[in-house]
Amino acid sequence: MMECYLDNSATTRTDEDVVSLMRQIMLSDYGNPSSLHKKGFEAEKYIIDASRTFADILKCDASEICFTSGGTESNNMAIIGTAIANRRRGKRLITTRIEHAAVSAPMKFLEEQGFIVDLLDVDSHGRIDPAQLESYLGEDVLLVSVMHVNNEIGALEPVAEIGNIIKKKSPSTLFHVDDIQGFGKLRLIPKQAGIDLLSVSSHKLHGPKGVGLLYINRRVKLSPVIFGGGQQRGFRSGTENVPGIAGFALAAKKMYAHQDENYRHLQALHDLFLREISGINDITINGGDVPYIVSLTVHGVRAEVLLHALEEKNVYVSAGSACSSNKPSVSATLKAISVPDDALDSTVRFSFSPHTTEDEIRYAAKCLDEVIPVLRRFIRK
Amino acid sequence: MMECYLDNSATTRTDEDVVSLMRQIMLSDYGNPSSLHKKGFEAEKYIIDASRTFADILKCDASEICFTSGGTESNNMAIIGTAIANRRRGKRLITTRIEHAAVSAPMKFLEEQGFIVDLLDVDSHGRIDPAQLESYLGEDVLLVSVMHVNNEIGALEPVAEIGNIIKKKSPSTLFHVDDIQGFGKLRLIPKQAGIDLLSVSSHKLHGPKGVGLLYINRRVKLSPVIFGGGQQRGFRSGTENVPGIAGFALAAKKMYAHQDENYRHLQALHDLFLREISGINDITINGGDVPYIVSLTVHGVRAEVLLHALEEKNVYVSAGSACSSNKPSVSATLKAISVPDDALDSTVRFSFSPHTTEDEIRYAAKCLDEVIPVLRRFIRK
Repeated sequence: MMECYLDNSATTRTDEDVVSLMRQIMLSDYGNPSSLHKKGFEAEKYIIDASRTFADILKCDASEICFTSGGTESNNMAIIGTAIANRRRGKRLITTRIEHAAVSAPMKFLEEQGFIVDLLDVDSHGRIDPAQLESYLGEDVLLVSVMHVNNEIGALEPVAEIGNIIKKKSPSTLFHVDDIQGFGKLRLIPKQAGIDLLSVSSHKLHGPKGVGLLYINRRVKLSPVIFGGGQQRGFRSGTENVPGIAGFALAAKKMYAHQDENYRHLQALHDLFLREISGINDITINGGDVPYIVSLTVHGVRAEVLLHALEEKNVYVSAGSACSSNKPSVSATLKAISVPDDALDSTVRFSFSPHTTEDEIRYAAKCLDEVIPVLRRFIRK
Repeated sequence: MMECYLDNSATTRTDEDVVSLMRQIMLSDYGNPSSLHKKGFEAEKYIIDASRTFADILKCDASEICFTSGGTESNNMAIIGTAIANRRRGKRLITTRIEHAAVSAPMKFLEEQGFIVDLLDVDSHGRIDPAQLESYLGEDVLLVSVMHVNNEIGALEPVAEIGNIIKKKSPSTLFHVDDIQGFGKLRLIPKQAGIDLLSVSSHKLHGPKGVGLLYINRRVKLSPVIFGGGQQRGFRSGTENVPGIAGFALAAKKMYAHQDENYRHLQALHDLFLREISGINDITINGGDVPYIVSLTVHGVRAEVLLHALEEKNVYVSAGSACSSNKPSVSATLKAISVPDDALDSTVRFSFSPHTTEDEIRYAAKCLDEVIPVLRRFIRK
């Protein structure tokens, strides 16, 4: 039976070249980058090279790249770190109703510490309204945090427009973008979009788990979240995860070397998938600005039941957001785009990678086509 | 020329079995542990098994193990997390003058936030005085943090005695131990020693970089430092580094499977090393409670010069603490044990692993014997 992993927004298979590089570093170039001898310099060189790789991609200075343990830490650092470092300037923060928990949870923590968080609404496509943002802005707003690509429905936020509005109306307000679902597939240049802080995760783009980065514009005042030996220019202490960082950089380099063809392929997969499932009645596609995330409401079928029925056919998808801990709860994103209450629990996500094949897409669509009528019959009895 | 890596307290070579296991997980069992399908469960099983491995070693419940991105994060979580969660109870913290920056830097951050930190002195061996601790203790002390094995001079702190004093004099005070240099070589059972929080790092024991753990006794109230999807029972959000965690557990299991013979071997290496360098005049050994860390003051020679002279002979050691970022500064530990000012800058650390051989030790000693007189002649000219 074909194996069909369509949960690439949750995590991806690590690239084989990345694994080989990591293996070599772990066995041969295993020094501590802070050590003053050759073994240390060898290790440090991987970190420097990785910073340069990302500086090239993001068109920034290598000193503006700070490696972290992953996207969640990057988001926490951006949000808590700027709030703590700049709290004398104000106590307001702005974000959206559809952020990942790695943004909404640190925001909630800051609320408990006395900060005030305003939430932007989204329309039925999951997009915020720049006019609402503008009306909320003011010099007492420390930070605006808006994701680039929503992880559940693939909505694309107008981040360049937002950056522009912030720079015009409140230039001292910092702008953070969670680009965890966009980086590797789309190209967002922080300085062109008025972005001060940008979070990236490695394991969403065929890099290893346990590593990510935060782009930090030089003008940003940021308190660390993790204190210690002063690695990463004092922003993030702790011995660097050298194999992870080098693997992450290689994975990103490979993604961007084929970005255009990857994107065309993802678009083709998307169109094929929608074509193949067009015969299934009573389904709704939510959001869908990017081709690699398809959020599908299958009316009358519980998402978890559908997920397990597909799993039996080796098709792996997700119910709800799925990169939070495994207690499924009602999705804030689906509620925010006004998915009706009785459909909230009937939504699954298919997420594609450039390595996904058309055969896999056809197979997954065929499985859906087979499984949905059976489940509906069963439930309606 | 023989390669002789004697900087194992900075970091270690990753074990080959660990690398193989990680490779397999990255290429085959790459799911997100929070995913609800089989690929997720496969991944989650590695996390559960790893928790059990550590629960066996630490004689605690698997639910008391929280995986982190490394020792620095574990220390930060223990210190900042308990201070924030318990600040209504008091604002005092106690630690020592010889902690690693991963403890002293978060303590400094808390001081800036209004907490009060008392520092315990150490004697010339680097050991604290339990009576001084007792005199500082009180119900308004939230946390005591004392390292098990000092990273620079190998001093062994009386942690079980400290735990006992705390439990008697101020049972609501929490006790954190940084066991980053002890775990894997010594065996410290938190519940037997009155320890509530214990930090461990993977890459000091032939596991991968970028992973560690914090033992958190069930009674401990702790605020997360990183917020998000609620992984690790809410203590530490972010997709778990599955290959890192599984590799860490395997490395620990292998260390403890041979703990007694490893320790005898480390003791033999230590004794051999001291015998071999006994002919060198004007040197001092600092601390030295554990056999695998030898802190050597070579009077009249700058540590960095000695380090590089040894490096040319493929002998890798460290100057100062060396797992902080690579600006060497005056060591607080050496000052605390009253190393004279003119010797502070003349101290190097040799740190052994169970994989270090007697031949390597003889070779390193021979290199020292050759190099020191040359450097001294050069400097005295």
